[in-house]
Amino acid sequence: MFTVIGERINTTLKKVQAAVAERDFEYIANDVKLQTEAGATYIDVNAGARIGHEEEDMKWLLEVVQGVTTLPLCLDSPDPKILEVAYGLVSNKPLVNSISLEKDRFDPMIKYLKGKECGVIALCMDDAGMPKTVEDIVARAKTLVKELEAIGFQREDIFIDPLIQPMSVDGNNGNVAMEAIKTIMTDLEGVHTTGGLSNISFGLPERRIVNRCFLAMMIANGFDSAIMDHLDKDIMALTTTADMIAGNDDFCMNFLKSVRAGKVVS
Amino acid sequence: MFTVIGERINTTLKKVQAAVAERDFEYIANDVKLQTEAGATYIDVNAGARIGHEEEDMKWLLEVVQGVTTLPLCLDSPDPKILEVAYGLVSNKPLVNSISLEKDRFDPMIKYLKGKECGVIALCMDDAGMPKTVEDIVARAKTLVKELEAIGFQREDIFIDPLIQPMSVDGNNGNVAMEAIKTIMTDLEGVHTTGGLSNISFGLPERRIVNRCFLAMMIANGFDSAIMDHLDKDIMALTTTADMIAGNDDFCMNFLKSVRAGKVVS
Repeated sequence: MFTVIGERINTTLKKVQAAVAERDFEYIANDVKLQTEAGATYIDVNAGARIGHEEEDMKWLLEVVQGVTTLPLCLDSPDPKILEVAYGLVSNKPLVNSISLEKDRFDPMIKYLKGKECGVIALCMDDAGMPKTVEDIVARAKTLVKELEAIGFQREDIFIDPLIQPMSVDGNNGNVAMEAIKTIMTDLEGVHTTGGLSNISFGLPERRIVNRCFLAMMIANGFDSAIMDHLDKDIMALTTTADMIAGNDDFCMNFLKSVRAGKVVS
Repeated sequence: MFTVIGERINTTLKKVQAAVAERDFEYIANDVKLQTEAGATYIDVNAGARIGHEEEDMKWLLEVVQGVTTLPLCLDSPDPKILEVAYGLVSNKPLVNSISLEKDRFDPMIKYLKGKECGVIALCMDDAGMPKTVEDIVARAKTLVKELEAIGFQREDIFIDPLIQPMSVDGNNGNVAMEAIKTIMTDLEGVHTTGGLSNISFGLPERRIVNRCFLAMMIANGFDSAIMDHLDKDIMALTTTADMIAGNDDFCMNFLKSVRAGKVVS
């Protein structure tokens, strides 16, 4: 089944940042409750926006979030020190967001990850910058998997993020992402693929329909996770439907259950 | 750009059958006007449901339809005699729906098609029945293209229909259709692929979302035409969006135009 990483508890969002600054328990608790009901697999928690306050904000968020949901968390920080603190506070095996091949990020993150019981999001980014071709993306994915396997990670715990780039920049960016996913899911059997969907629609109007249409097309190529705002009912309905069509929903059970719950409506 | 074959003028639909029986010009003319405005590439015309009346009904329909649109027509009949009459009455190069490899259909249709100036929909059906695997579909597609090329058809005038089968019958039917399309569009470069979308959702609830989600996923695999009810605004919006994401819309021009016209809404 599709892995939904709910992206809403992120201090780069103004309302979340204000709620964290004011220690507004109600606001965060309510959002996490809604995300849980809407079918999140992981709740992403990012406390990075208030410079100098990340550690205390992360601790407070973890307490609030874990007070209202039993879902595992996606610990979202570039700083291994913050991730180390967060790791000590989670009740369930978390997903760590993220490692990349940029030297300044790779070395401390590999050290942090070694011996940890967690999943990890691995960005296809290196010191040359954003990948430009399918081959770029796939080569970086293979290096990341090799390095993570070398420190004991199983493929099922690795979530490759191809770094989706906007259609408004290059009309081939959708195809590049789709082909990369197809190749990664074939050549690196057993890994997951994920990513921030909304990059695809940057610079375009009516972004929600572009994001959800793209997600269905990515699922057609084997994409099995996304970092997304799944409180948007339209994208969640299309995700459930696409996952069924892609053959990942035995006897259409999850689709039919979602229809009965009023979550999938034509 | 995606080829939309509007399926609404079909006498197997009760309202259309009644309108044809009563020679209700207004009903048909209005529907065709709406289909034209909504972005059809072809208007499918099927007059087969009133046994014994197909020829007169087809003649009447062609006159009415061509009175309100300059779009080319898709002549939809299994009977070469009807198609011969219809061919003599069309103003623009039509699409003929359809030939298959069933012997009773193939022989008279090949004879009919020889020397005609038209496109043709070619069904991956033979006397063994519906195709069961990707290999079945692709093998039949190759035979159809070979036979049509032998009587002078260009690939750009051939629309292969893989025969989409329901998810409710086999959870792998979506994948079979998608893989078949990808292989056909690669191995038979230059042909089009098309099909009746709504088969995918037979037996499921909320069929409209299944149909439009599946269409986006098929477009991700190269599908470039569908026989569909494009007056459904949601499916048309997703088609335009998916075609853009698949790289078929230079500078997102058609997508942006559709947004401005209020046809693509999140």
